[in-house]
Amino acid sequence: MSYCLATLIDEGIVFCSDSRTNAGPDRVGTYKKMHTFSAENERTLVLLVAGNLATSQAVVARIKRDVHEKAGTNLYSLRYMADVADYIGQLVLGETSKFIANEQRASAFDASVTFILGGQIRGQKPGLCMIYPEGNHIKPSKAQPYLQIGETKYGKPILDRIIRSDTPYETAMRCAVVSVDSTMRSNVTVGPPIECLFYRKDSFAPHEQYFKLDDSHPYLAAVRESWEENIRVAFEHLPSLDEVFKDR
Amino acid sequence: MSYCLATLIDEGIVFCSDSRTNAGPDRVGTYKKMHTFSAENERTLVLLVAGNLATSQAVVARIKRDVHEKAGTNLYSLRYMADVADYIGQLVLGETSKFIANEQRASAFDASVTFILGGQIRGQKPGLCMIYPEGNHIKPSKAQPYLQIGETKYGKPILDRIIRSDTPYETAMRCAVVSVDSTMRSNVTVGPPIECLFYRKDSFAPHEQYFKLDDSHPYLAAVRESWEENIRVAFEHLPSLDEVFKDR
Repeated sequence: MSYCLATLIDEGIVFCSDSRTNAGPDRVGTYKKMHTFSAENERTLVLLVAGNLATSQAVVARIKRDVHEKAGTNLYSLRYMADVADYIGQLVLGETSKFIANEQRASAFDASVTFILGGQIRGQKPGLCMIYPEGNHIKPSKAQPYLQIGETKYGKPILDRIIRSDTPYETAMRCAVVSVDSTMRSNVTVGPPIECLFYRKDSFAPHEQYFKLDDSHPYLAAVRESWEENIRVAFEHLPSLDEVFKDR
Repeated sequence: MSYCLATLIDEGIVFCSDSRTNAGPDRVGTYKKMHTFSAENERTLVLLVAGNLATSQAVVARIKRDVHEKAGTNLYSLRYMADVADYIGQLVLGETSKFIANEQRASAFDASVTFILGGQIRGQKPGLCMIYPEGNHIKPSKAQPYLQIGETKYGKPILDRIIRSDTPYETAMRCAVVSVDSTMRSNVTVGPPIECLFYRKDSFAPHEQYFKLDDSHPYLAAVRESWEENIRVAFEHLPSLDEVFKDR
């Protein structure tokens, strides 16, 4: 499993991903799930991925090969974000269909992957979408401007409470880190390092604000300790049930 | 979907369940998922259920019929909690096997149910277990003394942070209410009223501390408002990422 998320805010897009892969309990690995593609001053595109590692590696390799070989359709030639999403969706379908020809094998095997694609193409607003294993894609809504893939449930409540379109980028990134860290605590198939990237609207600078939080990073340690304590305080300040118990 | 949980604490057992059932978006209903069985001063047993409504109704009806007909094996004749769990497990298997004779139909249809069974039989300590759709069961660990069934992920992080064996019952129940309410917020297949029951160790009084929180219950409204505010404050007091951003 993996856990990745991205938030489309007024200032740009916040991306966050974990780095753990597992194919059974004795095949646990650390792999990068954030892939950045950039053509100076023209486009910056970021891909986050969750799902079958072989399929995602094949799709990313194919994207790079198409760029390298200057294929008619490649990540830099397509004019709109939706076309880029469709292109990646077709690559996903192509790769997974190799492995589901035999129905019987397919039932015990899941080659599917889900991508988050975000970034900006010059002349257009920043865009964000989730590409399903079936190849189609959706954008986030204005009311809920984030997208998640992988092990999404543990870390969703905090996003629902904090994230709005006008949330400042530092807050949105902090919220993403808390969301990923809480997920790591509740599910061992999500693990560090946490990769964080903020793409600032109209900057076309993919690495202006990028950092990686290892398990021993002082910020991660500080956030964990503080969150543990603050949540306890938040809980202790809730109204007591004593009145409800007594009412009976 | 459903969400039910129970916590085994030193003072007894806290039970909490939602009340929503859905068989598709236009078949949403309100059903009790908490069933109490009591023989005065001898045993108190509580069942929580998640899964297929037809199967769970059939199992509960069968339990009641066996009691009514004073069957050789019934909920009040079995001497140990583990035997009660095995008895219910066998009923579950019997009911579900009626519907999976035809493999093809089974693939598009899930008749499975999961139960939480808790309570006390005189002469024994209070006990808690989860009965799987396969009929077997597990007890909670001392380190993590709660069990969840149904839509469990959204509401797990708060339990991990608050619940210990020595947690007072008011705190454990408040934590359960927050866990269920957070889940209702993130997933529409979990809904009110929330049923709450505290079984006090050695009391053999199943309804000493029982209450139901409707969506409009003043306590639920107060907890929601307070939790929303307290979580925001907890989040705002986390260390800022500005230093990490600047470090680059």
